[in-house]
Amino acid sequence: MKLVPLNDKVVLKQLEAEETTKSGIVLPGQAQEKPQQAEVVAVGPGGVVDGKEITMQVKAGDKVIYQKYAGTNVKLDGEEYIIVKESDIIAVVED
Amino acid sequence: MKLVPLNDKVVLKQLEAEETTKSGIVLPGQAQEKPQQAEVVAVGPGGVVDGKEITMQVKAGDKVIYQKYAGTNVKLDGEEYIIVKESDIIAVVED
Amino acid sequence: MKLVPLNDKVVLKQLEAEETTKSGIVLPGQAQEKPQQAEVVAVGPGGVVDGKEITMQVKAGDKVIYQKYAGTNVKLDGEEYIIVKESDIIAVVED
Amino acid sequence: MKLVPLNDKVVLKQLEAEETTKSGIVLPGQAQEKPQQAEVVAVGPGGVVDGKEITMQVKAGDKVIYQKYAGTNVKLDGEEYIIVKESDIIAVVED
Amino acid sequence: MKLVPLNDKVVLKQLEAEETTKSGIVLPGQAQEKPQQAEVVAVGPGGVVDGKEITMQVKAGDKVIYQKYAGTNVKLDGEEYIIVKESDIIAVVED
Amino acid sequence: MKLVPLNDKVVLKQLEAEETTKSGIVLPGQAQEKPQQAEVVAVGPGGVVDGKEITMQVKAGDKVIYQKYAGTNVKLDGEEYIIVKESDIIAVVED
Amino acid sequence: MKLVPLNDKVVLKQLEAEETTKSGIVLPGQAQEKPQQAEVVAVGPGGVVDGKEITMQVKAGDKVIYQKYAGTNVKLDGEEYIIVKESDIIAVVED
Repeated sequence: MKLVPLNDKVVLKQLEAEETTKSGIVLPGQAQEKPQQAEVVAVGPGGVVDGKEITMQVKAGDKVIYQKYAGTNVKLDGEEYIIVKESDIIAVVED
Repeated sequence: MKLVPLNDKVVLKQLEAEETTKSGIVLPGQAQEKPQQAEVVAVGPGGVVDGKEITMQVKAGDKVIYQKYAGTNVKLDGEEYIIVKESDIIAVVED
Repeated sequence: MKLVPLNDKVVLKQLEAEETTKSGIVLPGQAQEKPQQAEVVAVGPGGVVDGKEITMQVKAGDKVIYQKYAGTNVKLDGEEYIIVKESDIIAVVED
Repeated sequence: MKLVPLNDKVVLKQLEAEETTKSGIVLPGQAQEKPQQAEVVAVGPGGVVDGKEITMQVKAGDKVIYQKYAGTNVKLDGEEYIIVKESDIIAVVED
Repeated sequence: MKLVPLNDKVVLKQLEAEETTKSGIVLPGQAQEKPQQAEVVAVGPGGVVDGKEITMQVKAGDKVIYQKYAGTNVKLDGEEYIIVKESDIIAVVED
Repeated sequence: MKLVPLNDKVVLKQLEAEETTKSGIVLPGQAQEKPQQAEVVAVGPGGVVDGKEITMQVKAGDKVIYQKYAGTNVKLDGEEYIIVKESDIIAVVED
Repeated sequence: MKLVPLNDKVVLKQLEAEETTKSGIVLPGQAQEKPQQAEVVAVGPGGVVDGKEITMQVKAGDKVIYQKYAGTNVKLDGEEYIIVKESDIIAVVED
């Protein structure tokens, strides 16, 4: 069972303290300070959305920064996801 | 008697506890936590809506996630439906 | 004496309890629960409205569902009408 | 001395109780219930307004229904007029 | 020293009681009831403004009606002017 | 060190009492009544801004009137500047 | 590890008191008065964003003035960044 985003939507999963430590971004004690970092789980097809051509610029596995207060929280099979528009993702975090 | 949605409108039916259990998405006791999951009942024709070309991307029978607070509630023959715009549907739930 | 809607406007008449029973949609006692069901009385010509091409998709006699809080109430010759934009009509009710 | 509306503007004159009776629309005692019925006094030339082509669809002498709260009230030579945009006129009342 | 309006801007001068009497529009005692009547002092060149082609439809000397609450008040050499957009002028008053 | 405005931005410097007297616009005692008069210090290149072609219509040295509450105040090397969009400048003051 | 901005986004780093002194812009004691001056750290690719062609006009290393209240604050590896849209940058500070 999985979430397949439509149009310009992107499914994200909040990075948890353990994962962010593993990736070296933050110390565990600071995890609550970074609520906008997430991992891309699935990416919509893009195309013409609301009359504008959208090319998706992130891919599954990317670590991203997204706009505060953006998106819809969804729980599926006990996991929490955030679904945002591609334009709510403002940067990719590269190693 | 049935609802025929116009333009980019989609008729949804809220998934009830029994149905969601059957589909394996949630345990009955958690049904009240997922108010945005619904099944597509009927899909408008799309086309040019508000000056923009809209291609409908869901079909009757799809399980979908839709935007909180979107849509109009309608009761017909004792059944409750939600009519939303296609752009208020953000993801399809696939098995 | 009659109302001739302009542009993308549609003249509606609220379905009353008797009529809705006759059409089989609702039991009389439930009439107050369906304030958004109405019958189309007259349809504007469509065409270019606010810079966008609008094709009218309902016709006089259609039973329709329209957006809550949409439209302007008008009384003419003792009858009450609601004038809405075509885009405020979200679905047609077919038998 | 007269008001010449610009662009998509239309000059209206509220129908008074006497006039509405004469036209048969309402009984004098109900005049205060119909504040949106007016007679067209003058019509702007239309054309490209705010980047959109507007074709004026009413003419002087038409009885019209206009949007509540729309328009600007103007007094000239002791007469009260309402100047609205053509898109604030939603229907023509025909005999 | 003079005000040269840019783009779709128009410089207006409020008609004072004496002037409006002279033009026959109002009696002096009613001057405070007509705050939206003004004389055009200078007219911007029009052209493409905010991506739309604007053709100026008033000229210096015109008596006009403008939208309430529109415009910017400016004092220059002891004179008060109102600078409005052309679209805030809704009608010309002709003799 | 200087401010180079981007796109459709214009750097302004508020006219102080001494300067406005010198140019003959106002008496020193009235300086606090004219907060929207300023001198253009630098002008952005214009071009396509937010999808629209903008041609800059003021130049360094122009005395201008700008919209109240528009712009961003910046202090550089002890001098105060206001940076506004070209569309916030409504008129040029010519001698 | 670094931030790679998408679309029309720009990663900025607030100029601290020491740095601004070094560049000669401000005296250390005045640092708290200039919260909108920052150095460009990384620049998105531009291109078609929200249906409009955006050409990025700043480059890494530029000292810029940006709109108050614009942008998203991000902390990465103990450093604070501000991510803004290119249109929120209003001027470049040149030496």
